[in-house]
Amino acid sequence: MPYTIADMHDLDRTDPLARYRERFSLPDGVIYLDGNSLGALPRAVKARMDEVVATQWGEGLIRSWNTHDWIDLPDRVGDRVGRLIGAAPGTVTVADSTSVNLFKALGAALRLRPGRRVILTEKGDFPTDGYVATGLAELMGQGHEVRFVAADELASALSPEVAVLLATEVNYRTGARLDMAALSAAAHAVGALTIWDLCHSAGAFPVDLGAVDADFAVGCGYKYLNGGPGAPGFVYAAVRHHADLRQPLTGWLGHAAPFSFAEDYRPAEGIARMRVGTPPILSMQALDAALDAFEGVDLREVKAKADRLFSIFTAAVAELGLSLATPADPERRGTQVSLRHPEAYAVMQALIGRGVIGDFRQPDIMRFGLTPLYLRYEDVWAAAGILREIITSAAWDRPEFRRRAKVV
Amino acid sequence: MPYTIADMHDLDRTDPLARYRERFSLPDGVIYLDGNSLGALPRAVKARMDEVVATQWGEGLIRSWNTHDWIDLPDRVGDRVGRLIGAAPGTVTVADSTSVNLFKALGAALRLRPGRRVILTEKGDFPTDGYVATGLAELMGQGHEVRFVAADELASALSPEVAVLLATEVNYRTGARLDMAALSAAAHAVGALTIWDLCHSAGAFPVDLGAVDADFAVGCGYKYLNGGPGAPGFVYAAVRHHADLRQPLTGWLGHAAPFSFAEDYRPAEGIARMRVGTPPILSMQALDAALDAFEGVDLREVKAKADRLFSIFTAAVAELGLSLATPADPERRGTQVSLRHPEAYAVMQALIGRGVIGDFRQPDIMRFGLTPLYLRYEDVWAAAGILREIITSAAWDRPEFRRRAKVV
Repeated sequence: MPYTIADMHDLDRTDPLARYRERFSLPDGVIYLDGNSLGALPRAVKARMDEVVATQWGEGLIRSWNTHDWIDLPDRVGDRVGRLIGAAPGTVTVADSTSVNLFKALGAALRLRPGRRVILTEKGDFPTDGYVATGLAELMGQGHEVRFVAADELASALSPEVAVLLATEVNYRTGARLDMAALSAAAHAVGALTIWDLCHSAGAFPVDLGAVDADFAVGCGYKYLNGGPGAPGFVYAAVRHHADLRQPLTGWLGHAAPFSFAEDYRPAEGIARMRVGTPPILSMQALDAALDAFEGVDLREVKAKADRLFSIFTAAVAELGLSLATPADPERRGTQVSLRHPEAYAVMQALIGRGVIGDFRQPDIMRFGLTPLYLRYEDVWAAAGILREIITSAAWDRPEFRRRAKVV
Repeated sequence: MPYTIADMHDLDRTDPLARYRERFSLPDGVIYLDGNSLGALPRAVKARMDEVVATQWGEGLIRSWNTHDWIDLPDRVGDRVGRLIGAAPGTVTVADSTSVNLFKALGAALRLRPGRRVILTEKGDFPTDGYVATGLAELMGQGHEVRFVAADELASALSPEVAVLLATEVNYRTGARLDMAALSAAAHAVGALTIWDLCHSAGAFPVDLGAVDADFAVGCGYKYLNGGPGAPGFVYAAVRHHADLRQPLTGWLGHAAPFSFAEDYRPAEGIARMRVGTPPILSMQALDAALDAFEGVDLREVKAKADRLFSIFTAAVAELGLSLATPADPERRGTQVSLRHPEAYAVMQALIGRGVIGDFRQPDIMRFGLTPLYLRYEDVWAAAGILREIITSAAWDRPEFRRRAKVV
């Protein structure tokens, strides 16, 4: 063990992010290393939900669409998300799930590249991206091909037949991070557009969509943004595409004048044309309140702390001989640790039984999310110690740990 | 005035639905006649949201997908909605907006009628239905035509080239109700499928999708179902279509084994294949709690009371010479009263200023929703009296009532 608990206490004491932990409500007896799957509860959410339910809905009723400006909530929350991902005001809106947002972005992107037939994406990415792309290609019936290649082959697979590079910056299983700037430049060099899936990026570390000249992006509200289970996702479109942007889910709230109830669809100006139907206000208000937890936070410090947590955790379990699925180079990864074990599912269940919550990903991956706003150095150190005990004593080797839950 | 306040008190005293009013939290000083736009707050929602936020999310964290069975919530809430619309268990799921659900249902329906090119719909329906249909037709690029005809021409416009009859049972502006049984039979007689938009039906009066042999249906969670602002919508598909149902929004939660993270999309069995991405759990939990307000309620009694409220309201304003846009025949309408006035917007603002909340619809319609679970006879009688005062004194004729709000 290269570190002691005293080292951890020192690190926590001098941690510039330590003060943000009190912005979260965390259960006793749990070390939560799954904030990359469902973020912890920000304290501000409870008061907001009370107010939204009792006052805005209960008292204000329909009037709150105006008086509490529910109607602009998607774009207002979008701008707040935008500040975390380097997106200019007016380029991000929040609503629908990531999958639905991806359908919109991809539909819009393909229409901007009518002569091209290839959607290039990474083999082994979170599968909804491939499912949505394949479903859209089939629906359009124009012979679009979804081409899956390994991460390190994406750049060389870019060619003038590629309409869109659809790529997730950080792989959900391994935590490996693509070079968004280089791939964006390479895509643009052959005339292709980019759609970046930021599900494991937004709120985890600095992202600068403007600097990398991204065309479109989508992402998740309930992971590092802590918006609550099933929080709506976000979608970004660069300003240069707004005028010509036509997305295929033409619902009434994306209309230029939704309350004119005109027969013909006329898209709203700007990012608002990415809206479809009435958005889930309660879930979106929770996300808006959750974003308060990022006020004053420097995401460079978040990434730096995540990297130190990574080093401490991996050093503490190094002797176990588990294979590290996550790149050792901090520049080439997000903020998770993925370790392989042939009985990863059972080991994770044993960990959860001891109060250390991470998750399992097929076929052999234990995934630990590092969320510096509410994780202490001592937490990660303790979690590693419990993992060591479980592995060395084979405490995972019990039938109840092998029984699969519905959601794994 | 054909009625007195004493008559109203008598009616309220003997009303079998009167006891359900206490299931709702209603603001003082307001008569709420807009439950057809945003339903009032059911009391059960507050406690549920407290528990979901603090316990399920805050304490349970990611584990609640299993321990609180979030994963099956869409289909569980779907079955509860299904009981209100005559849908068999396993045929309704809840998630996404009505617009997105319509896209799925229409995409699936068109695929089931590959040789046909016409989507028949009503001119003057809520426009999102036409927008979505037009957007989908354009995306598919197979020459589908969205044919808009007047309500009374729908039956005669059915022909063997019609793939889908897409119709809203109750028109949002007028409250006129289509004959769902007759139109469904006529559609089937020419081999067309039906998609029924139940936004102004579900929870308002008895609907029996099984009896009319409906193919697909969609509807809204935040109007008569009282699920809160932007509550997720629902989608229904008849069992006979499940095996062949392919809908175009192929997201990971519609996969047969979402947690296998398989590369190829394989649709789930049954209605679960209408799922797309992670649903907004907070908003869906609110809808689930809201549905408690329907426990033990007989929707035939709800419609009967709505019809009596309709008679009282219209009789009380009859002398004003306002034109009634809603059919007088109870069988041919839903549960709203729509009245025309050349200055309908200003009149409605004046009403709202007096605590009577209805809404305005272009170009000249004042819309009053009748929601018998939380409206008393005396409320509707009082509202009519205030409308009479405003019209007879021209109290609406002031600049502040003519200034349009963002949402109207």
